[in-house]
Amino acid sequence: MPAWVVIMAGGGGTRLWPLSRRSKPKQFLPLLPGGETLLAAAVRRCGPIAPIERTVVVTAASQVAEVRRCVPALPEGNVVAEPEGRNTAPCIGLAAQEVEKRDRDAVLAVLPSDQFIRDERSFVRALAQALVLAGKGQVVTIGIRPTRPETGYGYIELGEAAAGASAEAKGAFRVARFTEKPDAQTAAGFVAGGHHLWNGGMFVFRADRIRGEIDKHLPELGKLLEAIRKQPGKLGALYRQAPKISIDYGVMEKLPASGDMTVVEADLGWSDVGSWAALPDVTPLDGAGNAVAGEALAIDARGCVLASDGPLVAVVGVSDLVVVATRDAVLVVPKDRAQDVKKIVEALEAQRRDTHL
Amino acid sequence: MPAWVVIMAGGGGTRLWPLSRRSKPKQFLPLLPGGETLLAAAVRRCGPIAPIERTVVVTAASQVAEVRRCVPALPEGNVVAEPEGRNTAPCIGLAAQEVEKRDRDAVLAVLPSDQFIRDERSFVRALAQALVLAGKGQVVTIGIRPTRPETGYGYIELGEAAAGASAEAKGAFRVARFTEKPDAQTAAGFVAGGHHLWNGGMFVFRADRIRGEIDKHLPELGKLLEAIRKQPGKLGALYRQAPKISIDYGVMEKLPASGDMTVVEADLGWSDVGSWAALPDVTPLDGAGNAVAGEALAIDARGCVLASDGPLVAVVGVSDLVVVATRDAVLVVPKDRAQDVKKIVEALEAQRRDTHL
Repeated sequence: MPAWVVIMAGGGGTRLWPLSRRSKPKQFLPLLPGGETLLAAAVRRCGPIAPIERTVVVTAASQVAEVRRCVPALPEGNVVAEPEGRNTAPCIGLAAQEVEKRDRDAVLAVLPSDQFIRDERSFVRALAQALVLAGKGQVVTIGIRPTRPETGYGYIELGEAAAGASAEAKGAFRVARFTEKPDAQTAAGFVAGGHHLWNGGMFVFRADRIRGEIDKHLPELGKLLEAIRKQPGKLGALYRQAPKISIDYGVMEKLPASGDMTVVEADLGWSDVGSWAALPDVTPLDGAGNAVAGEALAIDARGCVLASDGPLVAVVGVSDLVVVATRDAVLVVPKDRAQDVKKIVEALEAQRRDTHL
Repeated sequence: MPAWVVIMAGGGGTRLWPLSRRSKPKQFLPLLPGGETLLAAAVRRCGPIAPIERTVVVTAASQVAEVRRCVPALPEGNVVAEPEGRNTAPCIGLAAQEVEKRDRDAVLAVLPSDQFIRDERSFVRALAQALVLAGKGQVVTIGIRPTRPETGYGYIELGEAAAGASAEAKGAFRVARFTEKPDAQTAAGFVAGGHHLWNGGMFVFRADRIRGEIDKHLPELGKLLEAIRKQPGKLGALYRQAPKISIDYGVMEKLPASGDMTVVEADLGWSDVGSWAALPDVTPLDGAGNAVAGEALAIDARGCVLASDGPLVAVVGVSDLVVVATRDAVLVVPKDRAQDVKKIVEALEAQRRDTHL
C-alpha cells in the first residue's frame, strides 16, 4: 500500500498581482521565509509521507519549467503536464492514471500547491491517518478546523464518528455533506456549532478507487481517460475534450449521500493565501506588525504588507497598507481592500495591457 | 546690450527620491506634462529673452551628458562644466566670465534650472524689465509674490519704489534687506504685510558688474577667476580651490545696505518642486485631484501624487498618498509627510546602499 503524493500546481489567478501573473500564479512566488515558494513547501512537507520519487506534480504544459525551477529535486518523469487546464476532475483523473500505471496499489494524497500550512506536524499526522483509511478503500478528505466565519470557502459537515477504537479512527468522521460558500449567518453558525470544517481540497484515495468513482459519476471523463491510457500519443487532442469540472462538484459531493466518505479533522494553521492581506499568515512579522517578502525599508510604518520580487520597497508613516513592487508594476491598496486588486486586473484586461497581466 | 541667459543646473539633492538620485537631481526628471524636464522648461521659457545661441547652462562635469539629453538644441560650447560643485558664487563667477569672454557688454539673467513657473508670460515680462534695469548698471533680482507663509524660503523686503515713471520702473523697488528662512510667526507677518517677496534665486546684472562685485566682496574668488581666465587649462585644479559660498550670502546680501539693489515684483505661479507634495503645482490634476507623472492607474483614489519613470503605478482606495516608482525602488509616504523621504535617504546612506542613492 505505497503512498504517493500528487500536488496540483496548474492553477492560475492574479489575486496576488503584480507578483502573480497569468504566467506565474501564486504557487510559484517566493512568499515564504527564505524565499521558499508555496509549491516547494507543499512538496517538502510531504517528505515524511512519500519520498520525492513517489511525488508527482501536475501542472499546465506551459508551466512545467516553472515547476522544475521551484522543485529541482523532482525526477523528470514526475511532472505530469496537462495540455490545458480543464479544472480538477480531469487533472486528478489524469494524475491518478499516471500513478496507477507505475503502481497498481498506489494510495494517492492529492493536494493543492498554493496553500500554506503552519503546523506541518499536524498535517503529516492527519495525512498519515488518512492514508491508512484510504488504503482500506475509503475516500478521505482532510478537514480544517475553521478559525473564522469565512464565506468564501467550502465547508464539510461532520457525520458520525468513524467506527472502532484504533488510532486511525480518532478524529475521523463520516462526511455528512459539503456546503459551498455559505452566507455570513450560515458560516457563523457553522463555526459556532463545531460540526463543520473547511474544505481545503485535500483528498486521499486508492488510484483504482478514484478511477471507479470517475467512471461512475463522470462517465464521459472516464472514457476519455481510458482512451488516453490506450493512446498516450493523443493526450493533447483527447484531454482538450474533457469536461471542465471540479473533483468536488463532479465526484466528492456525490459520495456523502452513500455514507461513503471520511473526513480527518486537523488544526493546521492553514491559509489559502487568497489575497495580499494574508501575507501575515505565512511570514513572520517585524516589531511593528509589518509582513515583508522581499527587500523593504519601513520607517514609522505599522501593520503593512510589503512584497517585492526585486525593487526596494520604502515606506514612511503609513499603516495597514499593502505595497507590492515588481520591475514593471507597483500596487498600493489598503489591507482591508486587498481583494480590490481584481479591479486593477480587470482595468488592465479592459485596456488590453497584456504585458502587465 | 545683448541679453544672455545662464541656467544653473549643477544642483544635487534627493528630495524627489527615488526618481531623483545623486546622479540625477530633479532638474533632469521628466515631471512636466509631455515628459518635459524642469531644465528643458527653464531654457524654453527664456526663448523670448535670448536665442539658444546666447543661452548657457552651467552644470557639474559629471552631468554634462544629462544636460545635453534634456536640451539637445543647446550649442556644444554653451555648456559650462564645473570641475566640482562649489555652490553658486563660484558657479556664477565662472559662467559670467565665460560669457564676458564672448561678449564684453553682456547682461546676464542667471536662473535656477530646478524651479517651475506656471505663468511664463509674467516671467518673461519681469525678466525683460530686469534686463533693462540691469543694462543701466543695477543688480536686479526677481521677487516672487508669496502665496503662503513658507518658512523654508528666503524673503526680500521691499524698499522704496524705483524712481521715474518709465515702464521699467513699474513694480520695481529697492531691496531693503534679505531674510533667510524666517520662523512661522515672522513668515506670516511678511505675507500679511505685503512688503516681502520670495527670493527665487533669479539675478540679473551686467557681466562686468558681477565681476566687480565678486572682486569686492569675495576677493579670493575674484583672484581665482582671474587666474582661470589667464590659464583656462588649469580650470580643474584652480576651481577646486574656490570658496564654497552662495551668491546670496557672498554678494547679494551685501548690496541692499548700499542702496544698490533692485527687485522686480512678479506673480509667477512659482514652485520650487521641493518635495513630491509639490507635484500638483506642476502637473494638471485628474478628476479626483491626483497628480500623475508617468504611467499610473488610479481606482477610487483621491489627492494622490503618482510618479514613475517606467513601472505602472496602480493604486486602489487610497487618499493623499505619494507613490513613486522606479525599476529598482518604490516610495510610499503620506503627502503631508513627503519631506520624510529624507529619512529613507538617510537610512540608505547609513546602510551604504549606494545603488539606491
